[in-house]
Amino acid sequence: MSELIHPSALISKGAFIGQNVSIGPFSIIHDNVLINDNTNIGAYCELGVQNSFSNSQRLIIGKNSTIRSHNVFYEGSTFGDCLTTGHRVTVREKTIAGENFQIGTLCDIQGDCSIGDYVRFHSNVHIGKKSVIGNFVWIFPYVVLTNDPHPPSEVLIGASICDYAVIATMSIILPGAVVSKGVLVGAHSSIKGETMENWVYAGNPAKAICPTNLIKLRDGSNRNAYPWTEHFHRGYPEEQVIKWIAP
Amino acid sequence: MSELIHPSALISKGAFIGQNVSIGPFSIIHDNVLINDNTNIGAYCELGVQNSFSNSQRLIIGKNSTIRSHNVFYEGSTFGDCLTTGHRVTVREKTIAGENFQIGTLCDIQGDCSIGDYVRFHSNVHIGKKSVIGNFVWIFPYVVLTNDPHPPSEVLIGASICDYAVIATMSIILPGAVVSKGVLVGAHSSIKGETMENWVYAGNPAKAICPTNLIKLRDGSNRNAYPWTEHFHRGYPEEQVIKWIAP
Amino acid sequence: MSELIHPSALISKGAFIGQNVSIGPFSIIHDNVLINDNTNIGAYCELGVQNSFSNSQRLIIGKNSTIRSHNVFYEGSTFGDCLTTGHRVTVREKTIAGENFQIGTLCDIQGDCSIGDYVRFHSNVHIGKKSVIGNFVWIFPYVVLTNDPHPPSEVLIGASICDYAVIATMSIILPGAVVSKGVLVGAHSSIKGETMENWVYAGNPAKAICPTNLIKLRDGSNRNAYPWTEHFHRGYPEEQVIKWIAP
Repeated sequence: MSELIHPSALISKGAFIGQNVSIGPFSIIHDNVLINDNTNIGAYCELGVQNSFSNSQRLIIGKNSTIRSHNVFYEGSTFGDCLTTGHRVTVREKTIAGENFQIGTLCDIQGDCSIGDYVRFHSNVHIGKKSVIGNFVWIFPYVVLTNDPHPPSEVLIGASICDYAVIATMSIILPGAVVSKGVLVGAHSSIKGETMENWVYAGNPAKAICPTNLIKLRDGSNRNAYPWTEHFHRGYPEEQVIKWIAP
Repeated sequence: MSELIHPSALISKGAFIGQNVSIGPFSIIHDNVLINDNTNIGAYCELGVQNSFSNSQRLIIGKNSTIRSHNVFYEGSTFGDCLTTGHRVTVREKTIAGENFQIGTLCDIQGDCSIGDYVRFHSNVHIGKKSVIGNFVWIFPYVVLTNDPHPPSEVLIGASICDYAVIATMSIILPGAVVSKGVLVGAHSSIKGETMENWVYAGNPAKAICPTNLIKLRDGSNRNAYPWTEHFHRGYPEEQVIKWIAP
Repeated sequence: MSELIHPSALISKGAFIGQNVSIGPFSIIHDNVLINDNTNIGAYCELGVQNSFSNSQRLIIGKNSTIRSHNVFYEGSTFGDCLTTGHRVTVREKTIAGENFQIGTLCDIQGDCSIGDYVRFHSNVHIGKKSVIGNFVWIFPYVVLTNDPHPPSEVLIGASICDYAVIATMSIILPGAVVSKGVLVGAHSSIKGETMENWVYAGNPAKAICPTNLIKLRDGSNRNAYPWTEHFHRGYPEEQVIKWIAP
């Protein structure tokens, strides 16, 4: 076994572990897991939890990923390269996520979701089943994407979050709601139905407040705060940033 | 020791483990725990945590239960048969729960609670001390049952949730509030005081909206969504379902 | 190695462990950690997580502390004596906290914070970077202290919570807001900007409701509920209580 795998870790023989993968103390890798090269997995993680909904599909973790301690991932989901997680993340089966996905501490992804590239969840985000999330989306702490219009029922209508949308702290996206491209949802809001691109929504229930480009950066520059791609570039590849700031 | 108990698990000699009980890697079972037959306990669980409020009462887990990984249960609480938990659940002392209780990932039950049969908590529900919950209740993510009318104080007045009530995402039940039989609390609401049976309440502070039987199922059937027992039967015993749907 | 350190715990040679310190099963103490005397650390804890923001500063835990199971603390933060935590707490780098700090289960302290003496967080509190918290503050479950006025951005403006303030369940403190001395924030509220000392604020957005001393204790005594220091004394030192109740 690789020197990068702590001797207390329990690695099933059926798991496929790539080159240069480190696995921390007391972690458990079940069968039916593929961890690609150059990935670091922290302590107390359980990857590839068996369940009856996964159709025996593998859990696939892309290369160059970092999974911090106390994570639980079920079998049956797929993550692109450069996944990064905080601590105590839970991800269930049949979620397909793109590259460079960041999942904060305590997030809970319920499964059956589609998630694009460069999506970032801060801490303690709850993503209900059947959510569809685009690219370059930001979701902040204690946001919940719901799915059942009359709970409990067997009718699940996932929320849709489009490219570049931002959802601030403790907001709820109600079943079937669409957070359109570039929308900013203010803190403590509830979003229902459709929204207009590049508008701010706030309140419970949320109302359309103003176009996002009326918000100024509070850094003394008098620049626009939105689209955020014009000023916030930490962690994005240079070729992407060039597209964002090109005249 | 049983082959079902992983060799890395730490089982105190004082613990009573029934027949056909499996215990996952790195789990800790303290003294003063009774785990009944045919129960499965995941990895990284700590059951029977000692504390000064439990009066040295045992933790009792009913038979045919499933406790998933990273759970923490204190000594001094009792669960009926067929308990099922998600991951990272915390349960403190002196809670008495009935049969077929489902507790979602990240739930936190603070102790001194009474919980009926067939109660289901989705993820990340917080149940304050002295809460009283009936049978067939549903509580959705990020709901908090509070207890202190003027925090901090020594006056704890628990919330009461009656049979068949449903509390949607991110709602608060204020100290001493009563969510009556069959009530639906909409998402992002705050409930204070009394409520009328089989009514919908929503808002912050919540208002009575309409009788629950005015809500239609969004499945094209034109059936009523409430009482939910007429259409949602997953996981309930057949003899119960027959009572619900009998003419 | 001390008999108080479980043989399954992994203690780095660079860690400094004081006298009479107990460390539970499967816990990991990294280099660059100082744990002072008479401290108890539960199972599955990871203390001193390396990170690029800590400037290689040590994690320091004061004496007579209790850290319960499944905690994660990064290197680079400092805690005074008598720290007490619940389960699954996460604390990142560069937070300086005073004495007798209580952190509830599932709390997430993001780092770069300043926290006074005798501060108490109930379960599941999220403290954003650059928060400044005084002494004798109480924060209840699902409260979030935010910091970014137009997320995502590099402009972080932390919230300030002054001495004796109380923030009830599921409230948000918006970036740069000041919760003044003795303020009570009602449940499910959003606080923006400045507040008046010893007033109650509630709502989303919050409004000034009344002076806190108009709220009566619901214990039949007809005493004032605020300042809470006149009636709530559990866990505070006698010399402090005498100051609070002196005529």
